[in-house]
Amino acid sequence: MKLKKKIFLLIDEERGNKKGDHFVEYFICILILLNVITIFLESYRSINEQYGLLFYGIELVSIIVFSIEYIIRVWVADLQYPTLSPIRARLKYIFSFLGLVDLLSILPFYLPYLMKIDLRVVRVLRLLRLLRLLKLNRHSKSLRLIGTVLKNTKNDILVTVFMVFILLVLASTLMYNIENEAQPEAFNNIGQALWWAVATLTTVGYGDIYPITGFGKFLSGIIALLGIGIVALPTGIISSAYIEEVQKGKVSKECPHCGKSVESH
Amino acid sequence: MKLKKKIFLLIDEERGNKKGDHFVEYFICILILLNVITIFLESYRSINEQYGLLFYGIELVSIIVFSIEYIIRVWVADLQYPTLSPIRARLKYIFSFLGLVDLLSILPFYLPYLMKIDLRVVRVLRLLRLLRLLKLNRHSKSLRLIGTVLKNTKNDILVTVFMVFILLVLASTLMYNIENEAQPEAFNNIGQALWWAVATLTTVGYGDIYPITGFGKFLSGIIALLGIGIVALPTGIISSAYIEEVQKGKVSKECPHCGKSVESH
Amino acid sequence: MKLKKKIFLLIDEERGNKKGDHFVEYFICILILLNVITIFLESYRSINEQYGLLFYGIELVSIIVFSIEYIIRVWVADLQYPTLSPIRARLKYIFSFLGLVDLLSILPFYLPYLMKIDLRVVRVLRLLRLLRLLKLNRHSKSLRLIGTVLKNTKNDILVTVFMVFILLVLASTLMYNIENEAQPEAFNNIGQALWWAVATLTTVGYGDIYPITGFGKFLSGIIALLGIGIVALPTGIISSAYIEEVQKGKVSKECPHCGKSVESH
Amino acid sequence: MKLKKKIFLLIDEERGNKKGDHFVEYFICILILLNVITIFLESYRSINEQYGLLFYGIELVSIIVFSIEYIIRVWVADLQYPTLSPIRARLKYIFSFLGLVDLLSILPFYLPYLMKIDLRVVRVLRLLRLLRLLKLNRHSKSLRLIGTVLKNTKNDILVTVFMVFILLVLASTLMYNIENEAQPEAFNNIGQALWWAVATLTTVGYGDIYPITGFGKFLSGIIALLGIGIVALPTGIISSAYIEEVQKGKVSKECPHCGKSVESH
Repeated sequence: MKLKKKIFLLIDEERGNKKGDHFVEYFICILILLNVITIFLESYRSINEQYGLLFYGIELVSIIVFSIEYIIRVWVADLQYPTLSPIRARLKYIFSFLGLVDLLSILPFYLPYLMKIDLRVVRVLRLLRLLRLLKLNRHSKSLRLIGTVLKNTKNDILVTVFMVFILLVLASTLMYNIENEAQPEAFNNIGQALWWAVATLTTVGYGDIYPITGFGKFLSGIIALLGIGIVALPTGIISSAYIEEVQKGKVSKECPHCGKSVESH
Repeated sequence: MKLKKKIFLLIDEERGNKKGDHFVEYFICILILLNVITIFLESYRSINEQYGLLFYGIELVSIIVFSIEYIIRVWVADLQYPTLSPIRARLKYIFSFLGLVDLLSILPFYLPYLMKIDLRVVRVLRLLRLLRLLKLNRHSKSLRLIGTVLKNTKNDILVTVFMVFILLVLASTLMYNIENEAQPEAFNNIGQALWWAVATLTTVGYGDIYPITGFGKFLSGIIALLGIGIVALPTGIISSAYIEEVQKGKVSKECPHCGKSVESH
Repeated sequence: MKLKKKIFLLIDEERGNKKGDHFVEYFICILILLNVITIFLESYRSINEQYGLLFYGIELVSIIVFSIEYIIRVWVADLQYPTLSPIRARLKYIFSFLGLVDLLSILPFYLPYLMKIDLRVVRVLRLLRLLRLLKLNRHSKSLRLIGTVLKNTKNDILVTVFMVFILLVLASTLMYNIENEAQPEAFNNIGQALWWAVATLTTVGYGDIYPITGFGKFLSGIIALLGIGIVALPTGIISSAYIEEVQKGKVSKECPHCGKSVESH
Repeated sequence: MKLKKKIFLLIDEERGNKKGDHFVEYFICILILLNVITIFLESYRSINEQYGLLFYGIELVSIIVFSIEYIIRVWVADLQYPTLSPIRARLKYIFSFLGLVDLLSILPFYLPYLMKIDLRVVRVLRLLRLLRLLKLNRHSKSLRLIGTVLKNTKNDILVTVFMVFILLVLASTLMYNIENEAQPEAFNNIGQALWWAVATLTTVGYGDIYPITGFGKFLSGIIALLGIGIVALPTGIISSAYIEEVQKGKVSKECPHCGKSVESH
């Protein structure tokens, strides 16, 4: 039991605070970063041809380490959630978001031996491994602040997203009817027009598709100007939530008007 | 009268709060979404050729349901606005924004039998049906907050829009005079230059039209930099209104400093 | 003297508040808008060929009206600035920004008869006439608020503009050295690189010039990401000034904490 | 010693406040600006051929002045940091950021005679000279406010940058797998996909690379919409810090509600 607790402290990011405890965490993060670099370099054919074996080696080591880490995390889950029964604690870890990412980052390696599915799909799945980079931030106070702000503004942001969705659908259907005759190739269907609408509303403007008729240009201008409003709305929402959150942190220490701490009220 | 009230609660989005009441609302929303998908898929020629009959069927059912809904809404309008006389209540619904949208979303189907107008125009009118999607949000507290913010900032935003309009007119007339000689094709008239000005000020930048002379590039840079200010202004306005609105909601409950409710002052 | 005062109230935008007084103001604004439309339509060769005479007529009428207006404004300037001596009041109007615009909007018409200068330059000068559109807003409370905010943030915005200027110069010189060899045509000189830097930092991205080397793309990405910061900085500045200004207006009515009006302090 | 103090006041930007003291500062700033213009004009081959000798002259004079300035700054560093020992004061200046820039802006001129390194690298180094333009702002109160805001928000901005980094890596790897088959040329490796991801997330959208498959366009739309969030987040952070900083400056003078200075609490 003593060994289990020690291993748990090595793995756990929040409770372990002795110097050596973070060594394991940093080692795994470096391995993840090495994996990201490997995936990048593998995509260059000439580099892959030369160093393919090295990349395979890194991958093999990573998978072994990640597999061991996953088994340990399942094993010590009862220490992480001491209020739950051992089985429930383990299930809680396994089905948590980070637990599923941990599993999916090693599963693709074992899957090909289990069944003959298309390798390409597996390769895409392997990208989820990168999500583990998020763990690097777990401690950060700033991340928690940003997280709180995003959680508080979730509803307002969702309404904005819904309004954007309606605007995109309306704009693309209108533009399809306006431009279809003049550019039957570019505005072949509403899907193409939707691609134009997204590029315009977000002000990306690749330039692969744009209206050429006077009416279409007018609509495009309106959509582009509304795009500014689309930026202004979430910015205002997030700014407001930020200021509120920062002031809340302030007030809880000392009231600026009566000088007493708020807890004494 | 009892049946009429029941039907009214089924149709009305705000007063009906029993479980079954929202069923009608959701059914109509799903039908609207189905219509949007149909309009999208119809624009793909190959899909339309294969499933054209299915799409026609969905459309027929939708029109029938929407027509019945419209008639009911007109019928129960006197319950929705109990303070008005029955006729005024009905006229109020018919000429309300959502009432007109309800009518316009079914009218195009009946119109072709009344008169032989161009079908294309009718098809564009049918897009207004999508506006009904806005109803999905009626309850939302966030939507009301966003609505209040937009209403409060309306005047300031309008002044910004007017300033943008003047800036666009000035920039496009200047650019036409600068670039017309160097690019007589692209900057053929001030309308073309206006298209460039909108694309630049909103930072969309499709790349179909841009200055090539030194002077034109200088003006383009100034306009693009002013585009940043154009984003900053409405964002500042909306942020300010948001913070004000959120704090108003806070203060009206309890003063955080003296613990008394604000109404007691 | 009585007639002069009456005429002054017809012309003056702020003091005249009887119904008929605004008629003159609106008439001149409509004439200005008509002029803007004329300038736009004149740039279309086919329209200009057909309606050239009509456009010339509108222009002639406008010039006559604007000339009379200018003479009247100079004449009644002593009523507008009653604390100044008649001559100083007139000079103050003539050399005020709007006074100069008033003069420049009519001068080009008389100039060609005075000296044989290039007509194109005169045509560009005529665009200043559009600046009179700004007058339409003079009353607006929102415009005054935006004006106050812009005045309060002037210094901070100027520092931001200076930082943008340094960033642009640094980025363009660096990019010229990086890309000149790979694209000797596109990145022919630092001026071209500056054009790229402006298009990237403001996120316009026309697509006529962009790096193709790995190093250049890396620098371009950094500049584009800094472009987000360039938007965030003025937005934060303006938001802050807005909130301050709006709260100042609030506080002057009633203090939210002690319930007394601020004037009683 | 008296002469040394006088020279120090001429060079120092903060302590010298007599009229003549700023003359040296302005002279050096003008020389720096002249250098920037020279670097720009040198890049135009035709101009460089004609005025090459003049540019060389300006450069020579600049280097001499900058060298003398650097030696003086090292010499009077003990007056700038009176609490440190003369040697430590000098080392502090030499290894300060502006000290290093001062050195690097003159070093490239002497280096070629010391060793035969590639001239191109030296030319790029010379660009650092432009950084001295930052000195022009040293006094500015606004710059200090912006500096404080940027320092206060550093952690939050860094977390945002890290989130952007993860998003870019994920998006580019996904897009490479989606588009590689359809566009083997454009999406040849993940590096190319990263270039696309940066251009899309920052909404620059040059248009040299963009998805053509339906799946790729869908992902591109999501990334572009997230790009709006990427703008909203730092803007909210900076707005909040700005408002806090401005209010801090207000409160520290006088409480607007009870009229007492805050220090008396």
